[in-house]
Amino acid sequence: MSILIIGSVALDTIKTPFGEARETPGGSATYACLAAAIFSSVKLLSAAGEDFPSRYIRKLQEKNIDTSGLEICPGCTFRWTGQYGENINEALTLSVCPERLKKETLKIPGHYRNPDYLFLANTDPEVQGEALKRIKPLKLTVLDTMNLWINNKLKSLKSIMRKADILFINETESKMLSGEINLISAAKKIMQDGPGIVVIKKGEHGAFLLSRDDFFAVPAYPLEKVKDPTGAGDSFAGGFLGYLATRRKITPANLRLATVMGAVTASFTVEDFGTRRLEKINRQDLEKRFCRMKQMLDF
Amino acid sequence: MSILIIGSVALDTIKTPFGEARETPGGSATYACLAAAIFSSVKLLSAAGEDFPSRYIRKLQEKNIDTSGLEICPGCTFRWTGQYGENINEALTLSVCPERLKKETLKIPGHYRNPDYLFLANTDPEVQGEALKRIKPLKLTVLDTMNLWINNKLKSLKSIMRKADILFINETESKMLSGEINLISAAKKIMQDGPGIVVIKKGEHGAFLLSRDDFFAVPAYPLEKVKDPTGAGDSFAGGFLGYLATRRKITPANLRLATVMGAVTASFTVEDFGTRRLEKINRQDLEKRFCRMKQMLDF
Repeated sequence: MSILIIGSVALDTIKTPFGEARETPGGSATYACLAAAIFSSVKLLSAAGEDFPSRYIRKLQEKNIDTSGLEICPGCTFRWTGQYGENINEALTLSVCPERLKKETLKIPGHYRNPDYLFLANTDPEVQGEALKRIKPLKLTVLDTMNLWINNKLKSLKSIMRKADILFINETESKMLSGEINLISAAKKIMQDGPGIVVIKKGEHGAFLLSRDDFFAVPAYPLEKVKDPTGAGDSFAGGFLGYLATRRKITPANLRLATVMGAVTASFTVEDFGTRRLEKINRQDLEKRFCRMKQMLDF
Repeated sequence: MSILIIGSVALDTIKTPFGEARETPGGSATYACLAAAIFSSVKLLSAAGEDFPSRYIRKLQEKNIDTSGLEICPGCTFRWTGQYGENINEALTLSVCPERLKKETLKIPGHYRNPDYLFLANTDPEVQGEALKRIKPLKLTVLDTMNLWINNKLKSLKSIMRKADILFINETESKMLSGEINLISAAKKIMQDGPGIVVIKKGEHGAFLLSRDDFFAVPAYPLEKVKDPTGAGDSFAGGFLGYLATRRKITPANLRLATVMGAVTASFTVEDFGTRRLEKINRQDLEKRFCRMKQMLDF
């Protein structure tokens, strides 16, 4: 089963109470691809600047990620500089430079047109909309977004939501998007706008999976040291989809298993800066933590 | 198995975005007794003023709660007036008048001296310490506390912690008490100060149960309408202990079941103002929600 992931590729500079990392590879698509590639065949659709170190591209290729859809554009790579304080759940964006991935210049290789799964990772909804016009996934369309787009491009976002099967969204953003203060009411309202399945990511508090017929809750994998939460949500979605693509059918039971695997994948990401930890783990590492999770939640 | 609960009995005035209640029965011991009495035989040790409506005492007695340890003192009952805003998890205390339960005047009926379980529900640690000197539980000593005592009576609190088997504490308070920002590190540090088992209550995010050999996480029961969170923590502990007392032994498995039952009990409490909902439910209601919880968490 093949997964096509469209989203940002970036160079991040991150500061947390536990250290810092400069110009480290990041972006929603980078995290999601690295996570999904642990389980499944992955294609990346994104754009970077000429200054994006080619060693990072080689790293993605070594993970069997198809990078023929990563366009190298004139100019600089998208950069994000952020800082986390004592409350490790909230990032303060210090600076950001324009994203390279644009609706007008979106190039899609021919063999990218019919993936089994399409993951519209967090990026401008206009880019996501353009991709949706030209890519026809065979099985599943999955969407992620963030507060920036809810505030500034709600109309575009809502029109994509109507075409998505699953929406990933964090707790605060689900409340913003729905206007509801209760998470379950928020998810129900979001489902009225299209996606039949909503996964609400709650950071250190785990996640909810809601659909018209199911409600599933999973706590986060317990960690004593969280060094850098950047990319946790993107790798949650990547792990979720990578795992789901290994199952024969999309059933409520498999969606639950995928949610746990997403939470487990994210638990590795936050243990080190940027993609460092995520790059090093394999499926056995994830399965092991999955089993500990099962044991930890049993009663 | 008998449970003795010592803590406050109050008249609460509560305002939330969903309505208000005036002079409604409250206090840590009231909630904990009502919850524990659904499962087990309960004795109440507390004090109220002459203005405490006797119909509330009769209500407790109708639930088979032994109120011979509820002293009626000259003067007014302890009153708390609080308000919850959009963030339903945080109460703003508008006014509070002195608690009636005092170290100097603590009266303990003879048949209260050797309960199986002693629950020191949230009240002044000096009162808790005095009770601990004069009451010798046969099986288990359980402690609850709050930010007020961590800030103002830390020394007394720490000396009781050394004698407690289980500590109930909320998320923010566990960080205050330990000086740690991570919940698992916080629980470990608290365990060094005595209680071998720590239950961290996380409100709408559920709870953690930690001991030297076990880690258990349970999400909160999902609710679309939370009318009033007052007493959620006290009824969590009450439900936990009431259920645990019905089991033959205190094993890790039974502690996990008790944690789920605590979460389920609290989920009823918050559905209406004060003790209104808690007064109306029976063991079947709890068992039913317990089963739904099991189904909701299965993967």
